[in-house]
Amino acid sequence: MSSKTMLAVVKPEAKSGADLRQVPVPTYGPNDVLVKVKVAAVCGTDLHIYDWDQWAQNRIKPPLVPGHEFCGNVAAVGENVTSVKEGDFVSAEMHVACGKCFQCRTGDAHVCQFVKIIGIDSDGAFAEYVVIPESNIWKIDPSIPADYAAVLDPLGNAVHTVLAGDIVGCSIAIIGCGPIGLFAIAVARAVGASTVFAIELNEHRRKLAKAMKADFVLDPTKDDVKKIVQENTNGGGVDVVAEMSGNGNAIRMGFDLLRFGGRVSLLGTPTKPVELNVADGIIFKGATVQGIHGRRMYKTWYQMTELLKHGRLEISPAITDRIAMKDFDKGMERLKTGEASKILLYPNGVK
Amino acid sequence: MSSKTMLAVVKPEAKSGADLRQVPVPTYGPNDVLVKVKVAAVCGTDLHIYDWDQWAQNRIKPPLVPGHEFCGNVAAVGENVTSVKEGDFVSAEMHVACGKCFQCRTGDAHVCQFVKIIGIDSDGAFAEYVVIPESNIWKIDPSIPADYAAVLDPLGNAVHTVLAGDIVGCSIAIIGCGPIGLFAIAVARAVGASTVFAIELNEHRRKLAKAMKADFVLDPTKDDVKKIVQENTNGGGVDVVAEMSGNGNAIRMGFDLLRFGGRVSLLGTPTKPVELNVADGIIFKGATVQGIHGRRMYKTWYQMTELLKHGRLEISPAITDRIAMKDFDKGMERLKTGEASKILLYPNGVK
Amino acid sequence: MSSKTMLAVVKPEAKSGADLRQVPVPTYGPNDVLVKVKVAAVCGTDLHIYDWDQWAQNRIKPPLVPGHEFCGNVAAVGENVTSVKEGDFVSAEMHVACGKCFQCRTGDAHVCQFVKIIGIDSDGAFAEYVVIPESNIWKIDPSIPADYAAVLDPLGNAVHTVLAGDIVGCSIAIIGCGPIGLFAIAVARAVGASTVFAIELNEHRRKLAKAMKADFVLDPTKDDVKKIVQENTNGGGVDVVAEMSGNGNAIRMGFDLLRFGGRVSLLGTPTKPVELNVADGIIFKGATVQGIHGRRMYKTWYQMTELLKHGRLEISPAITDRIAMKDFDKGMERLKTGEASKILLYPNGVK
Amino acid sequence: MSSKTMLAVVKPEAKSGADLRQVPVPTYGPNDVLVKVKVAAVCGTDLHIYDWDQWAQNRIKPPLVPGHEFCGNVAAVGENVTSVKEGDFVSAEMHVACGKCFQCRTGDAHVCQFVKIIGIDSDGAFAEYVVIPESNIWKIDPSIPADYAAVLDPLGNAVHTVLAGDIVGCSIAIIGCGPIGLFAIAVARAVGASTVFAIELNEHRRKLAKAMKADFVLDPTKDDVKKIVQENTNGGGVDVVAEMSGNGNAIRMGFDLLRFGGRVSLLGTPTKPVELNVADGIIFKGATVQGIHGRRMYKTWYQMTELLKHGRLEISPAITDRIAMKDFDKGMERLKTGEASKILLYPNGVK
Repeated sequence: MSSKTMLAVVKPEAKSGADLRQVPVPTYGPNDVLVKVKVAAVCGTDLHIYDWDQWAQNRIKPPLVPGHEFCGNVAAVGENVTSVKEGDFVSAEMHVACGKCFQCRTGDAHVCQFVKIIGIDSDGAFAEYVVIPESNIWKIDPSIPADYAAVLDPLGNAVHTVLAGDIVGCSIAIIGCGPIGLFAIAVARAVGASTVFAIELNEHRRKLAKAMKADFVLDPTKDDVKKIVQENTNGGGVDVVAEMSGNGNAIRMGFDLLRFGGRVSLLGTPTKPVELNVADGIIFKGATVQGIHGRRMYKTWYQMTELLKHGRLEISPAITDRIAMKDFDKGMERLKTGEASKILLYPNGVK
Repeated sequence: MSSKTMLAVVKPEAKSGADLRQVPVPTYGPNDVLVKVKVAAVCGTDLHIYDWDQWAQNRIKPPLVPGHEFCGNVAAVGENVTSVKEGDFVSAEMHVACGKCFQCRTGDAHVCQFVKIIGIDSDGAFAEYVVIPESNIWKIDPSIPADYAAVLDPLGNAVHTVLAGDIVGCSIAIIGCGPIGLFAIAVARAVGASTVFAIELNEHRRKLAKAMKADFVLDPTKDDVKKIVQENTNGGGVDVVAEMSGNGNAIRMGFDLLRFGGRVSLLGTPTKPVELNVADGIIFKGATVQGIHGRRMYKTWYQMTELLKHGRLEISPAITDRIAMKDFDKGMERLKTGEASKILLYPNGVK
Repeated sequence: MSSKTMLAVVKPEAKSGADLRQVPVPTYGPNDVLVKVKVAAVCGTDLHIYDWDQWAQNRIKPPLVPGHEFCGNVAAVGENVTSVKEGDFVSAEMHVACGKCFQCRTGDAHVCQFVKIIGIDSDGAFAEYVVIPESNIWKIDPSIPADYAAVLDPLGNAVHTVLAGDIVGCSIAIIGCGPIGLFAIAVARAVGASTVFAIELNEHRRKLAKAMKADFVLDPTKDDVKKIVQENTNGGGVDVVAEMSGNGNAIRMGFDLLRFGGRVSLLGTPTKPVELNVADGIIFKGATVQGIHGRRMYKTWYQMTELLKHGRLEISPAITDRIAMKDFDKGMERLKTGEASKILLYPNGVK
Repeated sequence: MSSKTMLAVVKPEAKSGADLRQVPVPTYGPNDVLVKVKVAAVCGTDLHIYDWDQWAQNRIKPPLVPGHEFCGNVAAVGENVTSVKEGDFVSAEMHVACGKCFQCRTGDAHVCQFVKIIGIDSDGAFAEYVVIPESNIWKIDPSIPADYAAVLDPLGNAVHTVLAGDIVGCSIAIIGCGPIGLFAIAVARAVGASTVFAIELNEHRRKLAKAMKADFVLDPTKDDVKKIVQENTNGGGVDVVAEMSGNGNAIRMGFDLLRFGGRVSLLGTPTKPVELNVADGIIFKGATVQGIHGRRMYKTWYQMTELLKHGRLEISPAITDRIAMKDFDKGMERLKTGEASKILLYPNGVK
């Protein structure tokens, strides 16, 4: 198979844009799994790479096949691989942890100091085939639809965030309703959160948040968010804040909405330092603040698989676009309009 | 007894300074305990009140007897009081929680939304007698020396901070070596922390930190703190940061010293917003940040009492000054020199 | 009001049975709340008292008005009461903790060493009026139906059991489908459990378990429970066992069904010692076993109130009988048939 | 090196006893580490194998080189090994987890369903050389003495047990003072336990428990253990029970000594079912019971390494015998006398 070629989205050099190209099907080692991609999905990170912004210039080393959200079927396995076989339906954790550092050896591989990300630090899933180490392969129950299986990476972000502390019977403010924020609404509802407040500037996203069944969908430029939250939380504020936007004002709003003794789980990453009222927002409130990165390996994966398998998560409204992989440029344009949320890519065209 | 008078430190009106006065011994209700103060101790907060700074002007309503660290003997009890009797040796939790809010009813009274603090919101312990509700009285084993029993409030801050997460076998950076920081050194050592880094600008305090047996005592203006921490933590950074200074630079240093997946417990309260690198310091590190306020009611009290009773805490170096209560002004001067750490006040003179 | 009389179920002396009597409306102290009972509910404990079995003979001191599950409206309040007023819709935690022991002072009042239970150790709710200390009153959102509000005590047992550890995405075996077991099915589903196995000998109860939407309802005398559990948990066993029966064989089955590293929460109380395979069932499995008693004060109450208020719990199938309080004897007969599950009593007749 | 021979203790066939033999130095694969044993240590399990008791007959498949406690220096490494090199001072976790099951993938490899133990299921460390997979090698700071490094396996059992829940400021009853119980005394003291009660039938072991600095050393055949515990725990019982004996009476005693809401960590494995008062001992007490097996991979290893490296653990009294490996039979005799606790074996003789 190694002499064959395949279609792939390629960032060929250090500039904006991407090419559609025929490239060699990647080779795989004794501990690797070659997966034929069925559905891939676009992350905001892929737009950073496409646009070649400051972050991308610092991190990405072209040429690169991007793409870190996908599902597919095992096409071939290395000689040491035992846990999957040809034909199995799989996805993968694309954060490849070193396995040897303190974090990896104590159950915290999601914060491995030496992590490498497939699709960012090495060739990824915007192609007909992708190579994944066996350790990172995630076998999927066939009852889970491929369109859902393609977004386990961002869904896992949402599961990790929402389940990072008490949530049953808790009120939660989800700030920022991109795909992960939207997924977080579904997760919160599935696990018995009481009231879900979705807060978002963009009108398209607010519509999606409503479709995801948030109890309140608020526009901070028009709604008196704090007042509405107070009125619906016995005056105390929310139990949990899930910050998905990375915006400084949004983060500050999160601390302001929080009840004494509550939890703020920060996933959205600001691009510059944020000025925080540490005394009132954190210390006097006795708040717990958590940095959320990736997904727990592999507790999060088990949790979301069970939720999906048993039909507890209805995430379809967040999937707004389905396009052929060859139309990658169009996907990038759709993202920029702010109308699209999660965009799925099909290497062999949309069926 | 109510017609008698007593010596007290009084903030008589809205201006700097304090008076020594004879005032009526306070009356007590059916659920209250009247305590004859044996030893009181001075907190940095008392200096804010004395100096009448911005915080004090906003919070304090003179006339007020300040003082919220003390021990003494029960002089009389209200008719409903059953847990202590005349003569018992006691201290008290001076944060009087409402007992009826969500936080109070779920074991988190230390972050009660409606807390009132004796010595700040009502008359306190810089006097011959102080009145405490029975719910807040803490009976002390007679084996604990009175000088230690007088500082359970700040010692409890240190215990709450250090024990707010994993600590056994963990390295810890204690930033800011005022009395609570010094106590935190003793606590960390008593409970099996591995390496204790004490970081402090003031030379007098660094000497005390050495006397408390910190493994490393560092001056951030001279020492390459980050390098020293890295060299002594396998390059990963500290497991725990206990921030006691409230200084913005110190807080930022704390996040910089932290290992991936580590914990930052913030007790020192900044007087203005702090600019933080949320992405690198919290999110990518998967850090946990905790606001620490007061002491857990009453888990912290049980923990520190047991540690003291069994001789596990050697905190005497942090007690630098012992003066008669009538010399209160001198105590304030000593604090301002930066040479004194914990100052004890004796209503009936130093013996 | 103290000169008035009211209808009450009374255990008049140390023998089986109970009387319907007119007794004085109880008096209340300054910290008490007098509640006019709207709906009460019968617990298995009430049958023990009625039948005057060994446990009852050891614990109960007649004359006694039993009954510890109810809701109603505040009829009058003592002079110190501030958190409720006449007319408020309320229920109550009937375990009156001492408030002064180690457990009470560290957030574990549900295991107070000196607890007294209203309806067991003092007059309870099978009457037109009942007196409750303010500390134990639970104000109820009017949106919660009275029939549900009457069973917060056993529903709280179920919530406490199910939420005593990880549950989201977890499989759970609920052994014993009396009212608490049935409620546990609803709770597990509401908070995102994956697969709920309900195991029960009695056919009537199995029907109810199906109505509560357990995924599998198994009869251990006919079904190969272990095989079915293994087949539906990837061969590993269940993540959680909630033991509600108190039967020795059932407890042993629970440990046998458990996966390595799983949790067994024991609520059903055996009347005699139980022989357990400690090595295989607990130690080699690295199991966690929890004794579950009462409800967490008041975390459980907040959790279940939020779940009910937001319509996350459908518990109506477990309420099988609604009778007038004067027909108490008939209720006892219905319980003995094994056909009834939760029986509601109406002091003023069924509407 | 593979053609060379080495001295080894060998269980040659299915009968009692063991042989000293020259056997081939074992071969190692690409992911393995060959270690030259410096010091090995004898576990009670080794005596079961030696005596060929029922457990051994069921589990062991001769010929076998036993031995699962040791330290040594790396003699050679497989081609894929990167984390250690020739000459490094190491020990190893001898529980080789499968790495692919649910438990392994969620940070609970210590309860892997498919674990294999080196020295039990394959050739172990009672030899001049032993082969260990790189994943299980534990590099040791040279500041840790070899005699301590040889007993990290049982010391890890003690650390895992004591640190399986709250311990700072807690009282603990350690029942059974074999080597692991003795180590547990040292660990409890190092991490700030308040009062350590050591309970043991054997006089020799009680002497060692005293040398380890337990606060109370009790003989259950003579001392009124319950009364002494109550008198020294404010009447409430101990916070923690660490059960190290595996004896039914001892386990029952543990539950009887426990305070309401306390923790029982069970490490000693009974050889037959144990009759427990589940109602009073577990349920009404709201107890937490934990099965303790092995050591957490690798959190326990980090914890104990840090404690040892910083001199917090004084475990030397528990090491009673040092003999040449060729005198293995004598070691077995010493164990049977009940006088020896931890016995060290030196492949090249005692220096």
